[in-house]
Amino acid sequence: MPDYKVAVAGLGTMGMGIAVSALRGGLTVTGCDINQDARVKFQEAGGAVSEQLADAVADADALAVVVVNQAQTESVLFGAAGAVQHMKPGSVVLGCATVPPAYAVDLAARVEAAGLLYLDAPISGGAAKSMQGALSVMGSGSAAAFERAAPLLDVIAERVFRLGDEAGAGSNMKMINQLLAGVHIASAMEALTLGIKSGLAAETVFEVITASAGNSWMFENRVPHVLENDYAPKSAVDIFVKDLGIVLETGAREGFPLPLSAAAHQQFLAAKGMGLGREDDAAVIKVFQALTGIDLPKGKA
Amino acid sequence: MPDYKVAVAGLGTMGMGIAVSALRGGLTVTGCDINQDARVKFQEAGGAVSEQLADAVADADALAVVVVNQAQTESVLFGAAGAVQHMKPGSVVLGCATVPPAYAVDLAARVEAAGLLYLDAPISGGAAKSMQGALSVMGSGSAAAFERAAPLLDVIAERVFRLGDEAGAGSNMKMINQLLAGVHIASAMEALTLGIKSGLAAETVFEVITASAGNSWMFENRVPHVLENDYAPKSAVDIFVKDLGIVLETGAREGFPLPLSAAAHQQFLAAKGMGLGREDDAAVIKVFQALTGIDLPKGKA
Repeated sequence: MPDYKVAVAGLGTMGMGIAVSALRGGLTVTGCDINQDARVKFQEAGGAVSEQLADAVADADALAVVVVNQAQTESVLFGAAGAVQHMKPGSVVLGCATVPPAYAVDLAARVEAAGLLYLDAPISGGAAKSMQGALSVMGSGSAAAFERAAPLLDVIAERVFRLGDEAGAGSNMKMINQLLAGVHIASAMEALTLGIKSGLAAETVFEVITASAGNSWMFENRVPHVLENDYAPKSAVDIFVKDLGIVLETGAREGFPLPLSAAAHQQFLAAKGMGLGREDDAAVIKVFQALTGIDLPKGKA
Repeated sequence: MPDYKVAVAGLGTMGMGIAVSALRGGLTVTGCDINQDARVKFQEAGGAVSEQLADAVADADALAVVVVNQAQTESVLFGAAGAVQHMKPGSVVLGCATVPPAYAVDLAARVEAAGLLYLDAPISGGAAKSMQGALSVMGSGSAAAFERAAPLLDVIAERVFRLGDEAGAGSNMKMINQLLAGVHIASAMEALTLGIKSGLAAETVFEVITASAGNSWMFENRVPHVLENDYAPKSAVDIFVKDLGIVLETGAREGFPLPLSAAAHQQFLAAKGMGLGREDDAAVIKVFQALTGIDLPKGKA
């Protein structure tokens, strides 16, 4: 493989996994993060780091923007020290954050106007799959963008869905996924707490539901956090405050009613209001707990 | 095996499966249904039938009540020609319908006062598993009731969850399952229609979501009905109008807020209001369609 250079902006859980997977795949990787601990962690994994995005992207073939939201994506690409002005012509930007689809469309136009390629590339799969190079990428963009990003996609993703020739489709699909994920987490906690209230053991509810038609990927993944009384954030309440916010904002723009999404969003907002924004998203169960006085599992002693 | 006699009250989709599975398991089975077509169908499968419940249950070891709701269960057991008065002492009644847990508790007390055993035994798994003898039974009741029902449970169920020594726990667990199932169907249709509105192909949404964290058992099972434009009822809208109604009625009694369940229930009520009560529950998508004017898949020509 010819030397292929990658910059990764954002070394949080998902960005770190992408950076480490790219390194393992034989690519030359520079990781950027304002958080020194994250930079040190990636250095310890054998990667190069930079505090200055301009340096990291100057000779990069691809820049993966793996930050939290639209504001951070905008800052990384078009802020005062933004990356776009420093990248070489024909290199590709992968937008991996979950952002409003309308923003992804606008962003792609501005990145392409600067002589670069843009791939709308939201990711799914969580921390473990990120670190294994086994993400799903919900991608859309030009054939040229896919081609330029291919060496990176090959080593970070198990599946790359090609959803269309233009930015927006990838972000639309991610939005649909987050709608379901958010509703399923909130309904998992609504169901589990009603089960506890009715006298069923939480562990029994988990055992029966995961073997029944009421199961969901999120029920199976998140209820164990409750059973273990472990709310250390694998993915935080704030993420679903944001992502269901994107869903509802899109619905409002399109004149499209979304009653389930709206109900779920209110529960995550309530959790945030209780000061739980940075806890694991399973902590939305504490909203039901606070309103009804049930006892939650205490985990292992 | 000594001759073990079973009566099955209700030869709908689930009851027929139970009756056929019991027959295949070597039990002596009499099926009852007010619908002649259903009786003929079970006769063609090799079973005995009766129009008179009194005759069917007179020497039965077990009566499985596989009807739609509380009212039908009450009528079968305690109506003018009700079964309880005709059953032999120590035989067991299996209550398989989804009913309010509080009703299951009351019913068990009355059946036991008549000298019979009662097993709170809601079922899950759908038509195909019913016919294969591979249901899940969410059971609760006395050890004696489980023991007396064992020859029947052995041949109709793949899994029997023993949820407690008293009636109510089984129905509570079934209620929790139906809460999740109903919310997941409604959210599947909310998500799919927003995806269509945003320009994604319905088939693509199905492909990506079933491989992603937004997946649920219901999304995977019901969205194909939409893709095939097939709303012939495997399970009808009316079932979730009823079952989410049970969820909300229980919540109201307990002072327990259930915002997701309430939002989902409204969507099923809207579908019923549109005249779709007897269509497949996936027809709740037509509520979103009516409100937003999107095009639903037309199925194969």
